[in-house]
Amino acid sequence: MNRVPLEKKVLSENDRIAGELRERFREHGVLCLNLISSPGAGKTLLLERTLESFAPGTRVAVLTGDIQTDNDARRLARSGFPVRQITTGGACHLDARMIERALTEWRLEDLDLLLIENVGNLVCPASYDLGEAAKIVVLSVAEGEDKPLKYPSIFFKSALLVLNKIDLLPYVPFRIEEARENARRVHPEMEIIEVSCTTGEGLDVWRQWLEARREAARSELREAPVC
Amino acid sequence: MNRVPLEKKVLSENDRIAGELRERFREHGVLCLNLISSPGAGKTLLLERTLESFAPGTRVAVLTGDIQTDNDARRLARSGFPVRQITTGGACHLDARMIERALTEWRLEDLDLLLIENVGNLVCPASYDLGEAAKIVVLSVAEGEDKPLKYPSIFFKSALLVLNKIDLLPYVPFRIEEARENARRVHPEMEIIEVSCTTGEGLDVWRQWLEARREAARSELREAPVC
Repeated sequence: MNRVPLEKKVLSENDRIAGELRERFREHGVLCLNLISSPGAGKTLLLERTLESFAPGTRVAVLTGDIQTDNDARRLARSGFPVRQITTGGACHLDARMIERALTEWRLEDLDLLLIENVGNLVCPASYDLGEAAKIVVLSVAEGEDKPLKYPSIFFKSALLVLNKIDLLPYVPFRIEEARENARRVHPEMEIIEVSCTTGEGLDVWRQWLEARREAARSELREAPVC
Repeated sequence: MNRVPLEKKVLSENDRIAGELRERFREHGVLCLNLISSPGAGKTLLLERTLESFAPGTRVAVLTGDIQTDNDARRLARSGFPVRQITTGGACHLDARMIERALTEWRLEDLDLLLIENVGNLVCPASYDLGEAAKIVVLSVAEGEDKPLKYPSIFFKSALLVLNKIDLLPYVPFRIEEARENARRVHPEMEIIEVSCTTGEGLDVWRQWLEARREAARSELREAPVC
């Protein structure tokens, strides 16, 4: 097979840094996941429940983004795992440079899972690659089943949809089958997991998804050729 | 009192157009309100309930913004009042030019209330003046009481906070007093109304707020000097 010269893509500065980050994560076998949602969809509680479920010594760390306050970092730090707040001071999304800077005090050798909680915004974070292996979109059933159609970019770009707060289903007019259909109209291969971080329902499925991804990242590291 | 020359402010293009719109609304006694929230906080249902409460012939119209779909316009048009969808095609906010264009087919003489439903985003729409008399931020109790601290700009710039979905209070860990305190920390003079568009609770207070504002806009028109 002949090599076909590819047209050189003009990468934006963000894409360039994100590419470097992705390479570093791959080299160290670190699975990096970028969680995105509206404000209040439950990203932080999902991360709290996830961290609680890990044994001490698990090689996990969290970066959490907000425009103001370090509330989320303080909540997550109770887990005992390394957590850093990125306060954007007005910016509506995290970018790759912020991730690069926030990582300077951690050794990637000590991690195999990096969870990034983006700023609460269903629009702008979709445009910024952070070097993650996958984006995950979290949608609360209190929001509305038409959101995948109204905000298609993030649903198209995310590998996984976490339908959160399913304990509220009896009290809200959310049609969950329609939400799944709408998500699949935008992104037919999207994986979908239903959870409640209040009752714990579905969190085992989420943990299995996470473990399968971590294992895949480790395998990739083992299979990397040594030059 | 001597007039003090003011330093000429360099207005951005958006501010310039917004200023023109504001002047046109004032000239015609049109109260323009700009509703902003996260996706799924309930702006559309609040507008549906509001339109339902108006007598036929009420001089009201709605512009509703979304990145994709005309779902909201179709929902709101059932009221029989003039409704237009603005589909931004990717932009995370409405801007003044979009409002100017959307208004070309309506006569402001025929209106005294223009309700604008912004794109679902608690961050970016705060920066774009649409010529409105007031911004209104809608926060669902399913979101979290720390949102005013995390997204201070929109809470600082809004005259009114509508705390929506209060029928869900028994099922969510939302501390409503703390939400009110957080909003007032960011914006001490902020008015706050609690509503449920499902049960109707509080909608009378919202309508009274709206009527008082409409009356004020009409009075301003009556008192304007005729040259």
